[in-house]
Amino acid sequence: MSELRKDPIVGRWVIIAPERISRPQALLDNGGLPLDTYDPFLEGHEDVTTPEIIAYRNHGTAANGPGWRVRVIPNRFPALGVNHSLEKRGDGMYDKMTGVGAHEVIVECPHFETNMSRLPVDNIREILWIYRDRLVDLKRDPRLVHGLIFKNKGAQAGATLPHSHSQLIVSPIVPIVVQDELEGSEAYFRYRGRSIYSDMIQQELATQKRVVIDSPNFLVFCPFASRFPFETWIVPKTQSSHYENVTRHAIEELGVVLKQTLQKMELCLDDPSYNYVLHTAPFDRQELPHYTWHIEIFPRMSGIAGFEWGSGFYINSVPPEDAAASLRETAIDG
Amino acid sequence: MSELRKDPIVGRWVIIAPERISRPQALLDNGGLPLDTYDPFLEGHEDVTTPEIIAYRNHGTAANGPGWRVRVIPNRFPALGVNHSLEKRGDGMYDKMTGVGAHEVIVECPHFETNMSRLPVDNIREILWIYRDRLVDLKRDPRLVHGLIFKNKGAQAGATLPHSHSQLIVSPIVPIVVQDELEGSEAYFRYRGRSIYSDMIQQELATQKRVVIDSPNFLVFCPFASRFPFETWIVPKTQSSHYENVTRHAIEELGVVLKQTLQKMELCLDDPSYNYVLHTAPFDRQELPHYTWHIEIFPRMSGIAGFEWGSGFYINSVPPEDAAASLRETAIDG
Repeated sequence: MSELRKDPIVGRWVIIAPERISRPQALLDNGGLPLDTYDPFLEGHEDVTTPEIIAYRNHGTAANGPGWRVRVIPNRFPALGVNHSLEKRGDGMYDKMTGVGAHEVIVECPHFETNMSRLPVDNIREILWIYRDRLVDLKRDPRLVHGLIFKNKGAQAGATLPHSHSQLIVSPIVPIVVQDELEGSEAYFRYRGRSIYSDMIQQELATQKRVVIDSPNFLVFCPFASRFPFETWIVPKTQSSHYENVTRHAIEELGVVLKQTLQKMELCLDDPSYNYVLHTAPFDRQELPHYTWHIEIFPRMSGIAGFEWGSGFYINSVPPEDAAASLRETAIDG
Repeated sequence: MSELRKDPIVGRWVIIAPERISRPQALLDNGGLPLDTYDPFLEGHEDVTTPEIIAYRNHGTAANGPGWRVRVIPNRFPALGVNHSLEKRGDGMYDKMTGVGAHEVIVECPHFETNMSRLPVDNIREILWIYRDRLVDLKRDPRLVHGLIFKNKGAQAGATLPHSHSQLIVSPIVPIVVQDELEGSEAYFRYRGRSIYSDMIQQELATQKRVVIDSPNFLVFCPFASRFPFETWIVPKTQSSHYENVTRHAIEELGVVLKQTLQKMELCLDDPSYNYVLHTAPFDRQELPHYTWHIEIFPRMSGIAGFEWGSGFYINSVPPEDAAASLRETAIDG
């Protein structure tokens, strides 16, 4: 069973998951067919995957058979599992807990498609809505504190299967990337009485320099201190700390905004590998006036990664103003 | 000119260095010869590189000619430069400063060698000593606050040249990786009145589970909350916050310890790409009772990176106890 361990110096939790070492990079449990010719996520291959947790299905179709549009299954090689009791222990000066949580895969379409951007907007809306559904469901488990939804697109971004999918890790701790944002935005709020996200949106709209898409309820922009070339954030203009409280109306618009952002990125950067991560507030906190959920997108441009790994220092060779101008000027259909 | 920019939410400084975009991945200023057949760091090729800052030379040899053993040159595509005035400015809610600093390359040997571990111990000692010399020199510039020394070994670790070398970035800010350690270790010290590094060394020595090499003045171990498989730290047993205050005597021993650690890693993991980073306290702080300089080594095992990029969550499939046992049991010569 996996274990969560905390670095005593910086407070970062890490999942130690020895089970995942057996994760095949090239083969799944599908009779040994190599994955470049076999797609376990295809409609009709439901018996090859783990049994579904939820799927949006056409009327009259049965679970774990064809007829679904978006489908959520447990990760076959989960980093965390729900079937353990949560035990928190000390180990001398160190802190650890059992690897309780969920690790799920969101299969985004029933046909073979590598690029989410090519899916119809309604399909993308259903993906965004099923993210919400999973968070709402898992939030009811009092052991679980945070849900992290992310996508690895392309082998360079860490994807092991090409069929468009995203992942969800729900855990009893808050990941350090979100923890740091919560602390920073709270300090800003205490000092200024305003949300840093609102201030940022206001300044980005005023200068326009880093804006990619200005939609009624969402701003897409390349952040001032972008770590990576073409790093792009999608932030709701109205304060909301928890993604699971998103409305149907917002998802209607977010579907369009996400599709357009990915289309621009793919046209502009020649179909790059990328990661996106949905940052949202912990389950056990009420609506926070200082925090806003958002999506961070990182294209993985070859030959550029590596430096910050080595140095711990982010060096970005593309100013976000240039990246935003390129993305803004990239014309897309529809 | 490059610029340092601060993320207003989490306080992370990033270098925006548009000059570096012209950095060739395959060619240098050497008459167009591809780098896989041409080594600009070779003894005799001094005219191809930028002029040396310092070199340990054989008696009677002249600067920028043959006869050196270890040589430091400015990075040809520097992320930061010394020839600017340091200007700190606001940009609405954002903070930025001019990209003042130094970006140097430490060429570790005059002959072609890819692996530091294969260099004689005396050569490694000179590399470790020249690190110190550069920090001592750059520390005198009151604009500069921190020096980060690191090595990218192998293409997978971000190296663009195979000849064994490391890099130094000295900047007017403290990198967030070090800042987080300073804050965490200070909080621990305030609460317990002890250094967290000393406590950690004591516990690691008591349990022995994660120890790789136990040398009189240095402990090599895989940390409890390792982010990556075979992550390994070298920590001095005696409290010392600033690497530049290291003694000749300590370097004698550290040369052996570093060589042995790299030898074990290379034998155990089949010559992996790796990064190491030397973490040390900021120039503008006196000796700190709560902080200890140390070296963190991260082998880059293929097919494993990527997940934490996507998720912001570190998932490590090799428990540090297993990694340490494998490294400990890997027999090396001499």
